[in-house]
Amino acid sequence: MSRLAAMRRPLLATSTDGVGTKVIIAQRTGSYGTIGIDLVGMVVDDLVVCGAEPLFMTDYIVCGKVVPQRVAEIVAGIAEGCVQAGCALIGGETAEHQVRPGDVVLGLASSGLHSNGFSLVRQILAETGLGLDEEPGELGGPLGTELATPTRIYARDCLALAQACQVHAFAHITGGGLAANMARVLPPDADAVLDRASWNPPPVFGLLARRGAVDSDEMEHVFNMGVGMTAVLGRDDADNAVALLARRGVLAWPLGTIVEGSGRAELTGRHP
Amino acid sequence: MSRLAAMRRPLLATSTDGVGTKVIIAQRTGSYGTIGIDLVGMVVDDLVVCGAEPLFMTDYIVCGKVVPQRVAEIVAGIAEGCVQAGCALIGGETAEHQVRPGDVVLGLASSGLHSNGFSLVRQILAETGLGLDEEPGELGGPLGTELATPTRIYARDCLALAQACQVHAFAHITGGGLAANMARVLPPDADAVLDRASWNPPPVFGLLARRGAVDSDEMEHVFNMGVGMTAVLGRDDADNAVALLARRGVLAWPLGTIVEGSGRAELTGRHP
Repeated sequence: MSRLAAMRRPLLATSTDGVGTKVIIAQRTGSYGTIGIDLVGMVVDDLVVCGAEPLFMTDYIVCGKVVPQRVAEIVAGIAEGCVQAGCALIGGETAEHQVRPGDVVLGLASSGLHSNGFSLVRQILAETGLGLDEEPGELGGPLGTELATPTRIYARDCLALAQACQVHAFAHITGGGLAANMARVLPPDADAVLDRASWNPPPVFGLLARRGAVDSDEMEHVFNMGVGMTAVLGRDDADNAVALLARRGVLAWPLGTIVEGSGRAELTGRHP
Repeated sequence: MSRLAAMRRPLLATSTDGVGTKVIIAQRTGSYGTIGIDLVGMVVDDLVVCGAEPLFMTDYIVCGKVVPQRVAEIVAGIAEGCVQAGCALIGGETAEHQVRPGDVVLGLASSGLHSNGFSLVRQILAETGLGLDEEPGELGGPLGTELATPTRIYARDCLALAQACQVHAFAHITGGGLAANMARVLPPDADAVLDRASWNPPPVFGLLARRGAVDSDEMEHVFNMGVGMTAVLGRDDADNAVALLARRGVLAWPLGTIVEGSGRAELTGRHP
C-alpha cells in the first residue's frame, strides 16, 4: 500500500452503499453486467467528494439463490468499476504459513452458534416443529434466547495474545466448521490433529443433533461445536496463553497439535 | 487516526460479511438487539486472524421496509459490538464548509439515471405498462438498455481536478436530487442558485415524466436530471476546470453560483 506509506499523516475515509432498486432493471432484463459499475460509482464518488483517493473496494452480495453465472457478471462489473475508479478490488482468503509440526492448537470457547449454521437450524425447526419458545431442560431457558446469543468477539483478546507471545496463526471458526477453518491456516506439509475429548460441546448442539436427527459429521461441518476461534503457537507458550485468556474471561484449552502431514485438519476421539 | 499515523509502514486490511440466515431468529423472536454484535464479530474476527487491529466498521442494512425501531435495535447492537472489538463505528454525512459567495458551481454530466430513483421507475413501469423492450424514438434504443446504463464514475476526474485547482467542495448527486445534495455542502450563510437554462436533461427524464405523469418538482427530487456531480470553485478557476474535464471526456458547465443566504440550494429558470 505504497500510496498510504508515502503519506506523512495518513487519514482514512470509508464509504458503503448499495445500488438499491436499480437491481430490478437487471432482474427484468436478465443482464447483470453493469450494476457492479453502479455500485462502485455510488461508493467511490461519495468518498472522493471529501478529497479522499479510493484505495480499495470490498463487495458483499446478498441473493436468494447463488447463480454462478450471475454472480460472475456482477463481480465483473465491480472489477470494471474499480478500474474506472483507479482502486483495487479486494477479496478472497489468504492463509499465513508460520504453523509447524510440534505447535499446539488452542481452542477458544464460543458463546454458542455464533452466526453460522442457521440454514440448517431453520430446516430443523421447520421439519420438527421445534419452537423458539420451548425450554428444553438442558438449555436452562427458551431455545430462541439460546439461538440469539450474540457472537463472542475475540478481536481484543487475539490482539492481546499476539502482543504477549508469538502466535503462529489464528483461525476464525465460521462456515464449514472447525476442521475446514483450521485447514486454511496449515502449510502443505503439516496436519492438525484435534481431540474431541478435550472439550464438551454446549448443550444446544446436542439438542439440535438429536431433534433434527443430524449426524455428527454434518454437525461438525456446519456448526462451531463450541470452538469459536483457534490459536496456533509454540508448545512453550501454550500455558501462558491459556492463563492470559482466562484472565480476560475467555475459556481456552489445548485442543490439538500440529504434526507432519499434507495440509489436512482432522478430528479424533470422542467428546467426554 | 493516531494509531495509523504512528505506524512506520501502515498496511491496511479489510473484511466484509453479513450474519446470513441467523437473521431469521431475530425475525421470529422479534428481537433485533444482538444480530449487530454477530455482524461485528464475523467481520472483525476474520480480520484479526491476520494480525490486523480493527480500526473502524461501516454498516449497510438491507430491508424490505424500514421500521425505525428495528433499525435502531440493529445499530445499537453494531455499536455494542464495536465497543467489544475496540473499534469505531463510522457513519453519517459530513459537509465541508470552504464554499463562499462568489464561487461558481460546475455541473458534471451524468450518464443517465445512475443508481437513484428506481423505486419510482418501477412504479411508473407497473402503472403504465411501459415495457423495457420498448424503443421510444427519443431514446434511440430500448428503454431497458437506457435504464441499465452504468453509473459514470467521477473519482479519477475529481482527483485530477482537485490537484489542478482549488476545489472548495464536490457534491455527489444521488438520492434527493440536485438541490438536496448541493445543500449538504453549503455553509449556513450561503445559498446555491442553480440555473436550469444551463443544461438540457437527457431524453429519458422527459420520457419518464411524461409517461408517468410525474411533475417536475418530484422529478427533481428523485432523479439527477443529467447532473451526476458538482464542483464548487472560485470564479477564476472555472474555465480551466471545464477545459480539464473536457480533455478527460467529461462534459462540465457553469451550473450556478454561490450567493449570500441561509444554506439553501434552489433551482431557477427553465430548461432550454
